[in-house]
Amino acid sequence: MDKVRIIKVKQSVFANNNARAEETRAKLKQKKLFLVNVMSSPGSGKTTFLVNLINRIKDQLKIGVMEADIDATVDAETIATKTGVPSIQIHTSGECHLDAKMVDDGLTGFGIDGLDLVFLENIGNLVCPAEFDTGATCSFELLSIPEGDDKPLKYPLMFSVADVVIFTKLDAKVVFDFDIQKAEERILKLNPKAKFFPVSAKTGEGMDAIADYLVQAVKAYQQD
Amino acid sequence: MDKVRIIKVKQSVFANNNARAEETRAKLKQKKLFLVNVMSSPGSGKTTFLVNLINRIKDQLKIGVMEADIDATVDAETIATKTGVPSIQIHTSGECHLDAKMVDDGLTGFGIDGLDLVFLENIGNLVCPAEFDTGATCSFELLSIPEGDDKPLKYPLMFSVADVVIFTKLDAKVVFDFDIQKAEERILKLNPKAKFFPVSAKTGEGMDAIADYLVQAVKAYQQD
Repeated sequence: MDKVRIIKVKQSVFANNNARAEETRAKLKQKKLFLVNVMSSPGSGKTTFLVNLINRIKDQLKIGVMEADIDATVDAETIATKTGVPSIQIHTSGECHLDAKMVDDGLTGFGIDGLDLVFLENIGNLVCPAEFDTGATCSFELLSIPEGDDKPLKYPLMFSVADVVIFTKLDAKVVFDFDIQKAEERILKLNPKAKFFPVSAKTGEGMDAIADYLVQAVKAYQQD
Repeated sequence: MDKVRIIKVKQSVFANNNARAEETRAKLKQKKLFLVNVMSSPGSGKTTFLVNLINRIKDQLKIGVMEADIDATVDAETIATKTGVPSIQIHTSGECHLDAKMVDDGLTGFGIDGLDLVFLENIGNLVCPAEFDTGATCSFELLSIPEGDDKPLKYPLMFSVADVVIFTKLDAKVVFDFDIQKAEERILKLNPKAKFFPVSAKTGEGMDAIADYLVQAVKAYQQD
């Protein structure tokens, strides 16, 4: 009984959320603003990756960052200090994901006029954020080398909805067995259009490739 | 409007769940069965840790394992193959956590008579599993070295509800900065009774200490 009731509520929540996300996407398109939803497990290196990436492209694009957390503010402070781009913190008050309304409210509060690119760092969680369309233009999923190449088998929805999968902490391959080819094959079965970038934000390896890809994607979107 | 409706449903779900969890705990106590709820991020090494731990204590205690996953079966197969103890897989059908009813149904299906200790490997997630009392006797939270010592700041509820925090992948300290003392201080602020065990399931470092602790805890519980 309980289960059925929960599922019905979730369906209605999903329908409302999807409609709101589509409105956000249309509004962003009109303003030529590219919104990237960055998802991953806790501790897979989202903030460190974003700092490195933003510092490579901030001279080419006007960038903002929205950091979601349950109730901490450390990430927004780190981004602001280390990149100088405007950054705000969204608190979800215990919720395990961002939904389209939270994101739209965050964008309105942030003030998006004149920006080319906004990164939305979602809550660290491989389950719930995959279920809620945020209205983003593009979704990144970061899978760190220490987590293991079996994660696409265990969290299939997340790897199905990600447009770009970034293998982070590549420098840790000296300590961990992680078969990138096997991981890519598992993800392509779920998501044949997925694109892959192995990187180490610590050493800089692979960061130029994802930076170039993203700048080109934003420019193509703005000219479309 | 949407948010209010979700929160109301969640409160009723939590109340029902807590009552069910207390029933499970009373039943387990009567049967002298110790149930450990093992929680962590995805990829923090729950299954590898359990294989190593079980092989150290399976001659002293009769053990079973319930592996929760969204829809994979790899973990239950690994446990059964590498330890020989009975193991079942619980599928949550997309849900991001186990609740007390799923666990109680799992225990009934598993057949718990004659067992001393059952491990319940929860979904890899630092948010939702912390909200749902499973009826377990004791909760373990595994925090792996690559995830970073700031996780207690960002997922405070999880570190508040864990009885025992196990720092896993200690062998990866050569690659990652992780201040164990700082992590312990952060956790003790949330949870002054927390116990800590730093381990590497790969090298075996620290595994004797957690094995001894658990065997003693099970025996004390059975004699109480």
